[in-house]
Amino acid sequence: MSPPLPQIQILNPDNLGKPLGPYSQVTRVKASEFLFIAGQVGADKDGKAPLDFEAQCSLVFANIGLALASQGASFANLVEFTTYLVHSQDIAKFMAYRTREFPKLFAGGAYPPNTLLVIDRLVQEQFLIEVSAVAALWRLLARHSGSPRKRRLRTP
Amino acid sequence: MSPPLPQIQILNPDNLGKPLGPYSQVTRVKASEFLFIAGQVGADKDGKAPLDFEAQCSLVFANIGLALASQGASFANLVEFTTYLVHSQDIAKFMAYRTREFPKLFAGGAYPPNTLLVIDRLVQEQFLIEVSAVAALWRLLARHSGSPRKRRLRTP
Amino acid sequence: MSPPLPQIQILNPDNLGKPLGPYSQVTRVKASEFLFIAGQVGADKDGKAPLDFEAQCSLVFANIGLALASQGASFANLVEFTTYLVHSQDIAKFMAYRTREFPKLFAGGAYPPNTLLVIDRLVQEQFLIEVSAVAALWRLLARHSGSPRKRRLRTP
Repeated sequence: MSPPLPQIQILNPDNLGKPLGPYSQVTRVKASEFLFIAGQVGADKDGKAPLDFEAQCSLVFANIGLALASQGASFANLVEFTTYLVHSQDIAKFMAYRTREFPKLFAGGAYPPNTLLVIDRLVQEQFLIEVSAVAALWRLLARHSGSPRKRRLRTP
Repeated sequence: MSPPLPQIQILNPDNLGKPLGPYSQVTRVKASEFLFIAGQVGADKDGKAPLDFEAQCSLVFANIGLALASQGASFANLVEFTTYLVHSQDIAKFMAYRTREFPKLFAGGAYPPNTLLVIDRLVQEQFLIEVSAVAALWRLLARHSGSPRKRRLRTP
Repeated sequence: MSPPLPQIQILNPDNLGKPLGPYSQVTRVKASEFLFIAGQVGADKDGKAPLDFEAQCSLVFANIGLALASQGASFANLVEFTTYLVHSQDIAKFMAYRTREFPKLFAGGAYPPNTLLVIDRLVQEQFLIEVSAVAALWRLLARHSGSPRKRRLRTP
């Protein structure tokens, strides 16, 4: 029998302001197996990046989808994004891209938390965007501290 | 009965140099449920940011406190910070802010590891500081490999 | 008896392009105890940084090794790196450094995912490189959803 799915809650607590884009404030995740996906850039399998920012965005998220799929996961498993842009002029384009495309990737508007940063440069001059991600795969079921009498568990 | 608290150890190993500010080198955490808090900026609930750097700092950490509180957690649950500033001139102010305020937020000087970075820009021009955070909520109790005879556990 | 080691798989899925340097695309990790290591800089125990970029690299990875060792872990426990450089001119040097040194640190070419970023500045002007890291220490063994009849576990 396969282990249970992780419990992932994508949250925008009432006591915080509204997110300033298509992302959420908090993920709460109960999981025992994780994926750490290195910053994915807007390049194809041969390492070639299109000149256009939006075309690079498409490749970045396609690559993240492929990385997830390779482990039997999907965008629903994501718990966190970090996005790096090299030109502040691309912030508006990135907002527009996500507003249009994220509803296709994430059901019900549950967009993972994202930290958006404008930095000097990525590993190669041609790259305009890079996104790293953390995903949750599986959850252990284990009993929590039961009645002392019956307790048979120990911690390291 | 509620599950056990996470075991969070905030450490400055002897074999490393002293931290260069109010942070620690390492967190060791045993937990099965985590919060990923997206980069919080120095804005109020209406998205307005004060001009003053220190006022933004106050809002950032107040917002992180609210995000934690929304899930029944507190600053004691934090395992990691990443801090982004847009002006290197604010580094000294950020040091002073933490030196003054962190003792109120963190008991016994157990300040979480923090990576401090100066970058080009945040999502809006008005923001001078953004902080993302990871917190640990709960821990599973499960037996570890016991005697083979009694072993009734399996891994996926 | 000590708890089982984490299961760490360093992966380069076939459906993604080859990594653009000595890192991997994905880590899949099953663990219940983690280390969060704050950005380590190229300084010695007294906080002094050599002028040379490569000498700083050596100190950074030595420091990460010390942080790991302080908790009984090694480079084999790493699941993720994030590397910050302040000069794009150092990218090639960083590639060369890793190509030469990483085979000594990581068995079998299993280099952890790394996000490489060029930013404006680190906490002090003298620092040319900073690396933060996440490591996995231990794994819980717990049974997964067994037959309903025998089920004695509960989740919070």
